[in-house]
Amino acid sequence: HRQVSRKSMDWRTMPQSAHSRNTVNPVRKIADACQVTPNPNKRLLKLHLGDPSVGGMLPPSPVAVQAMHEAVDSHAFDGYGPAVGDLAARQAVVDRYSVPSASFTADDVILASGCSHALQMAIEAIAGPGDSILVPHPGFPLYSTLCRPHGIVDRAYHITMTDGVRIDLNYLESLIDETTKAIIVNNPGNPTGAVFTKEHLQEILRVAHKHRLVIIADEIYGDLVYNGAEFHPIATLSPKVPVLTCDGIAKRWMVPGWRLGWVIVHDRYKVLSQIKLGMVALSQKIVGPCALVQGALPKILKDTPEEYFVYTRNVIQENANAIAEVLEVVPGLTAIKPQGAMYMMIGVDKATYGDDVGFCQALIREESVFCLPGQAFSAPGYFRIVLTSNLAEMREAAERIRDYCLRHIGECRSEDSSDEG
Amino acid sequence: HRQVSRKSMDWRTMPQSAHSRNTVNPVRKIADACQVTPNPNKRLLKLHLGDPSVGGMLPPSPVAVQAMHEAVDSHAFDGYGPAVGDLAARQAVVDRYSVPSASFTADDVILASGCSHALQMAIEAIAGPGDSILVPHPGFPLYSTLCRPHGIVDRAYHITMTDGVRIDLNYLESLIDETTKAIIVNNPGNPTGAVFTKEHLQEILRVAHKHRLVIIADEIYGDLVYNGAEFHPIATLSPKVPVLTCDGIAKRWMVPGWRLGWVIVHDRYKVLSQIKLGMVALSQKIVGPCALVQGALPKILKDTPEEYFVYTRNVIQENANAIAEVLEVVPGLTAIKPQGAMYMMIGVDKATYGDDVGFCQALIREESVFCLPGQAFSAPGYFRIVLTSNLAEMREAAERIRDYCLRHIGECRSEDSSDEG
Ligand SMILES: Cc1ncc(COP(=O)(O)O)c(C=O)c1O
Ligand SMILES: Cc1ncc(COP(=O)(O)O)c(C=O)c1O
Repeated sequence: HRQVSRKSMDWRTMPQSAHSRNTVNPVRKIADACQVTPNPNKRLLKLHLGDPSVGGMLPPSPVAVQAMHEAVDSHAFDGYGPAVGDLAARQAVVDRYSVPSASFTADDVILASGCSHALQMAIEAIAGPGDSILVPHPGFPLYSTLCRPHGIVDRAYHITMTDGVRIDLNYLESLIDETTKAIIVNNPGNPTGAVFTKEHLQEILRVAHKHRLVIIADEIYGDLVYNGAEFHPIATLSPKVPVLTCDGIAKRWMVPGWRLGWVIVHDRYKVLSQIKLGMVALSQKIVGPCALVQGALPKILKDTPEEYFVYTRNVIQENANAIAEVLEVVPGLTAIKPQGAMYMMIGVDKATYGDDVGFCQALIREESVFCLPGQAFSAPGYFRIVLTSNLAEMREAAERIRDYCLRHIGECRSEDSSDEG
Repeated sequence: HRQVSRKSMDWRTMPQSAHSRNTVNPVRKIADACQVTPNPNKRLLKLHLGDPSVGGMLPPSPVAVQAMHEAVDSHAFDGYGPAVGDLAARQAVVDRYSVPSASFTADDVILASGCSHALQMAIEAIAGPGDSILVPHPGFPLYSTLCRPHGIVDRAYHITMTDGVRIDLNYLESLIDETTKAIIVNNPGNPTGAVFTKEHLQEILRVAHKHRLVIIADEIYGDLVYNGAEFHPIATLSPKVPVLTCDGIAKRWMVPGWRLGWVIVHDRYKVLSQIKLGMVALSQKIVGPCALVQGALPKILKDTPEEYFVYTRNVIQENANAIAEVLEVVPGLTAIKPQGAMYMMIGVDKATYGDDVGFCQALIREESVFCLPGQAFSAPGYFRIVLTSNLAEMREAAERIRDYCLRHIGECRSEDSSDEG
């Protein structure tokens, strides 16, 4: 190695790696833009965080709490477990989710530090520099955050928001080329609140099958559906394609802070053996999620009573419908009635109220109501309401939004009209 | 985008990404080689796992257990916290480790999913393809596992094992060139059991300072020192250089399964602002370690009584010295008396007993004693004993190793002599 003396140099600011520089969470910039001062005369109503533990309405089940205490007291989970996860915990995922139309074994499950980490391992094992992965817009921005530092191209397909929320499959298909490695399908959807029908999921599968593409299924909102919707795990439907299902306990067991997720490898046509090896290797970097939570997982998945989930669905359905009722009458707002997950999108007519970022800033400033602008999820012209607070608070938020709109209706029309297409 | 029809293709095995293919844990291959059948007539003695929770001698403190129960019951840690970690937990790291000679604030602490993840964030923020990082041989193999998938060159410096375990600094300096971004210094050392003197640490700092290099200090074994050694956090010594200290609760609080670690950014000369931003960005990929353990951290760091650590040191010191006593008399074995961490290295004369992998395989086959060959840690010609079992078991293991040696002494000499240099 060539020796260089750096003696004469001063210490200089070290540049960060391109990898970390390209690790960008687009929500952050937009959340920063929303750091405006709320109206001091109105109580804060925070409907911007996708964290069900915040509102107090959706605490974890006593079963989960008890399972954690038992895991701690057992002292069986103080030490290192396998990097892919404890066998009993992986078996618990099998026991809950393996069905004849999509069967798998503990060997096909890799535990992760949240669904985020599950997605990270799946993406990193499948693709590299110059490869592309199709991601939903509107959609959860983490997919892009995870792709870009590796030089993986996150190519956006469109989810149409009007006349039934669905993927524009013609456009999606036009994005596929020889660099394309996978399609990420998030159902039920964040931020859309949409639940794809069985038929639509089958259409998606047909495209994936035609192009021999694996699907990365983000099903973190799993069967959290309501208003008459049905949830179908995409791996259970036909035509069969290889599927990596990413999931976790954050959003139905309401413990996102516990950081436990998993990938299920549905290895159709025996094409995923290398990908599985890749994920196993990647899991060694951080040696598995918290072993205590792994120890609690079997009880959590087995013993949480069905009423717990029924209650959750009812809370969210009631909130969604109450908000829709209040906002229905407001000109220039279009509530997209959700059927799943814990979010609702409201379209904001730009000519009437300006763009979604300005709209959300004004809601904070005048009404102390916090929502995230659609731009945080590649959905300009919408804002997202989180549906996990109590009904009275949800209703008050909706009424304040309504009042804001009725006060300002049309103010933007004259200023902005020259900008409109 | 160009459209390609893949209709005519069959499904083919998907290749894994180069990134995951290059994520290799060298211990695995060697551990696999050691999957030989033990002697059925002898009780298994497992001295190969660096997991203090295994032997039963070193359970976590009741304080840590109580802290976890409280965190669960508080329900303050069910939801998402900041990706860099809960402020109170980061402040607890400050309260315990910030000293005038190496002071820092909560803003300089990033929590991680174990020290492994802390190292991952530090390495990934500092270096990229074509950069080099200096890593210790013998040393913990994860450093290389974390570097290589990014095309970061892990350039090995030598730790001499005889006449006082120390870094060969002339050789280390010869490895430095314009690609070099950092030196990883692990003290106390795995697998060496060595604790560097203050003077030696100052020599290391002088080299880093001369070449304007940041030090990544792996101090996971922190003040777990004995046999008269003193531990000096390298960031507290002079000359000052920028230091990223990686640490966690795995090895002194004896809960590696709980997966909590941290990086402390000692930003001397204000050169690490970009690196810190990089680590903050990287922490968003998995949104922080388990929030429950973060919730428990302040109590764990504040309230664990000093006797807990004194007890640990005594257990390990007694074990180390008992083993040394038994093996001292065995020709062709050289016990390197440890002063820190929980490991002991024993040199194996190749002409007398063959290489370390074959030696460890034979110990399992004939004596049911499990140790890891030095090759797992880039230390051929040694094997590593983990010092966390009870004294009787440690002594029995040493006696079986002695008996094995006395039975086989010299058998390899004739066969192997032609290979020797
Ligand atoms: C669609 C989607 N996937 C994944 C996640 C991340 O889940 P986890 O907290 O388990 O990492 C979220 C969190 O908001 C999400 O909305
Ligand atoms: C030197 C060294 N650093 C880091 C680690 C990893 O620690 P953690 O379990 O906190 O990831 C180990 C574990 O054996 C180690 O020996």
